[in-house]
Amino acid sequence: MKSIFSQIINKQIPCHLIAENDYAIAFLDINPIALGHTLVVPKIQVDYLFDLDSDNYRELWSFAKLVSIAIKKTIACSRIGVSVVGFEVPHAHIHLIPINSIHDMNFSNKITISSVNIKKIAKDIANNFQGILI
Amino acid sequence: MKSIFSQIINKQIPCHLIAENDYAIAFLDINPIALGHTLVVPKIQVDYLFDLDSDNYRELWSFAKLVSIAIKKTIACSRIGVSVVGFEVPHAHIHLIPINSIHDMNFSNKITISSVNIKKIAKDIANNFQGILI
Repeated sequence: MKSIFSQIINKQIPCHLIAENDYAIAFLDINPIALGHTLVVPKIQVDYLFDLDSDNYRELWSFAKLVSIAIKKTIACSRIGVSVVGFEVPHAHIHLIPINSIHDMNFSNKITISSVNIKKIAKDIANNFQGILI
Repeated sequence: MKSIFSQIINKQIPCHLIAENDYAIAFLDINPIALGHTLVVPKIQVDYLFDLDSDNYRELWSFAKLVSIAIKKTIACSRIGVSVVGFEVPHAHIHLIPINSIHDMNFSNKITISSVNIKKIAKDIANNFQGILI
């Protein structure tokens, strides 16, 4: 069965896209715990991160690094935190979260962002992602 | 100034070693939130994960995958969670945490393990790490 992330990858469900390549896609989390909270997802549907084959695993993390640079250029923060948990959607995904302290990594602290703002943030990060590729 | 992790890498401070290669080292966290909670650290001292050059970054994550397999072979758990935060030690490090639910990723929930047990766990994970290399 296609995961919700595979449906996003196949453009059957919309997302606030940041960037994608042959191996992975990045889009804003719809239940963010911080402004700019982004998911980086392999295009191949594998439940558990460490079950990815070496190529897809390596490409996923390389892509995540570029995405993290674009987020940090866009959102005022000390650094980008990384979390992979994986009990909610059976499709491996990396959370990239702008943080200023360890407490900003708390998944219980959801935030609300207006749809206008979330569109602007996605566009700004996407533009900065394109900028670092040049 | 050498970080506490660089001092561990240089064998100036002991650790409960899991494995190491030319690029990275893995040892048990001394303030664990789960049995088998492991740190994977690049041998080059860089504060922020995403400031690592491509080679060291890629090798770090490849090594972390092998370590995660060894931990999962050793500790009964649903999967190995991943977290990179980085406000405590100015030397990038990946937390690999055996988890059974999202709540097991809570860094406030430190656990206590006897020194006998922590030595046994490190040895068992280290042995399983060697096993997956064969």
